[in-house]
Amino acid sequence: MKVFHAVNEIVEWRKAQVGVFHKKIGFVPTMGCLHEGHLELVRKCKTNNDVTVVSIFVNPSQFAPTEDLDKYPRTLEQDLSVLEAAGVDACFAPSPREMYPQGISLEIDQQRGPFVTVLGVSEQLEGRTRPNFFRGVATVVTKLLNIVSPAVAYFGQKDIQQFIVLKVMTEELFMNTQIEMLPIVRDARGLALSSRNRYLCDESRAVSTAIYRGLNAAAAKVAEAAQTDGQIERETVIQAAMACWQPLVESRDFHIDYVSVAEGNNLTEMDPVTTQAADVVISCAIFVTDRHDPATVVRLIDNVIVPRCM
Amino acid sequence: MKVFHAVNEIVEWRKAQVGVFHKKIGFVPTMGCLHEGHLELVRKCKTNNDVTVVSIFVNPSQFAPTEDLDKYPRTLEQDLSVLEAAGVDACFAPSPREMYPQGISLEIDQQRGPFVTVLGVSEQLEGRTRPNFFRGVATVVTKLLNIVSPAVAYFGQKDIQQFIVLKVMTEELFMNTQIEMLPIVRDARGLALSSRNRYLCDESRAVSTAIYRGLNAAAAKVAEAAQTDGQIERETVIQAAMACWQPLVESRDFHIDYVSVAEGNNLTEMDPVTTQAADVVISCAIFVTDRHDPATVVRLIDNVIVPRCM
Repeated sequence: MKVFHAVNEIVEWRKAQVGVFHKKIGFVPTMGCLHEGHLELVRKCKTNNDVTVVSIFVNPSQFAPTEDLDKYPRTLEQDLSVLEAAGVDACFAPSPREMYPQGISLEIDQQRGPFVTVLGVSEQLEGRTRPNFFRGVATVVTKLLNIVSPAVAYFGQKDIQQFIVLKVMTEELFMNTQIEMLPIVRDARGLALSSRNRYLCDESRAVSTAIYRGLNAAAAKVAEAAQTDGQIERETVIQAAMACWQPLVESRDFHIDYVSVAEGNNLTEMDPVTTQAADVVISCAIFVTDRHDPATVVRLIDNVIVPRCM
Repeated sequence: MKVFHAVNEIVEWRKAQVGVFHKKIGFVPTMGCLHEGHLELVRKCKTNNDVTVVSIFVNPSQFAPTEDLDKYPRTLEQDLSVLEAAGVDACFAPSPREMYPQGISLEIDQQRGPFVTVLGVSEQLEGRTRPNFFRGVATVVTKLLNIVSPAVAYFGQKDIQQFIVLKVMTEELFMNTQIEMLPIVRDARGLALSSRNRYLCDESRAVSTAIYRGLNAAAAKVAEAAQTDGQIERETVIQAAMACWQPLVESRDFHIDYVSVAEGNNLTEMDPVTTQAADVVISCAIFVTDRHDPATVVRLIDNVIVPRCM
């Protein structure tokens, strides 16, 4: 596996792959700390492309000054072994200065250089708690797609709003990359895999499996309504999830940041809820307080999709 | 000459040019109403590339609600004849809806979709009078470069801040297009060619030739200092220009919007002024009131570059 740290080196390599060897490039952008969810993306990428490129870059511009940029887990050596074993062709692991030639401050008003915002799908849900998060994501993905120029790039459903933001971005900026979303990978108990899970003790991870049970209960209400009345009150859907979560709110394990029942194409909240016009995305963010170290509070996100059904 | 109105049609054509016929594509983006300045870009493009593509698109997102979007001159039929005669291979003339699939409001808070901002070089000079102008330019040029995917794109020096914004954008987003700036084309009397000149009567165009004389007088001071002391007071440079303009300010032909003496790489204002570190760009925007129709006020811009000289 080739490992590149410099933009110009991977660009040169990529030009040969496409221009000389006529390879179809598939791409999996990551922030490292790889888990089985990332490896699912890698496997799909390898199946559908001639050459697989993975990037590992903890992108400063998507972190707020108050967030966990410094303590975000970085496990580059281990990640490279995992990617090598998975048969990845090239890994791009640049420094922040390489990706942001003028440097990158976490303070917006000190930033210099080009930034991409996607209006209409960035402000709600994750964007409410993290106002510049998707601006950072859209900016770094634009840079990475221009550097790697893949035919296809793969993203996980766990960050579904990220996928929708990037879908709108790539389509409406007319980028020459298709983007694909692959299903969430979960542990045996149903917890969505996430690099941040490791901040929690095993007991709290077990408690956190209630997140998925709540979303499934809500999804069942929507699916049931699709078979009968065609629509259902938003409050009934949310209450189905809350019934699973309320005991954990009371025990102070959970603090609910948001729960959303939205149209899948534009993340507009629905009331009543119906699958007649679009997929329905039921998503949430929950702060989980660690049972063994109550100073550790981890914000987990998860979602389920109820497919459009006319 | 091929004329395309749909994104998918020109993308398909371009893929064949590059992928099948291995042509090097050069690109000249314009807002139409073509003059000799545009044709200089076209000629250079034809000389240095296998295939020349010109776009004609009056981009709504770079106009403020108060500006001249509706009355901006549109002369598509004539422009197409001119491009055909110039030996252009393809012209891309999309509708606003084609370029902005969700529509495009001039009111920022009603806009939806992806937008590109370039922090640090967009806020000063033109950006002070037109706060979202360069956001509009950067966004539409990103879309056009993704659609046409040229090896090189050509821009005129008249819009020098635009060039600097796009230079930073393409370099720091790692776009796969080189951008080049070509010198200003002037009429026989020295007035920089501009689509907006036609708003003025011939007498006022003659009066406006003082703009260039003022800039040259200022540039002479900087060049002279470079040969002697190496630096000069900013105020002395500006006064050299103002000496040419003051009579026209007093006659109410001119209202000076700004005059700038800035570093060429980042448009930071200089005091004292020296050519030791970078090119010096002396630029201005002047509102010219038409002598025959005083209700007509046209904002003209112009600039001269004093090259770096250590």
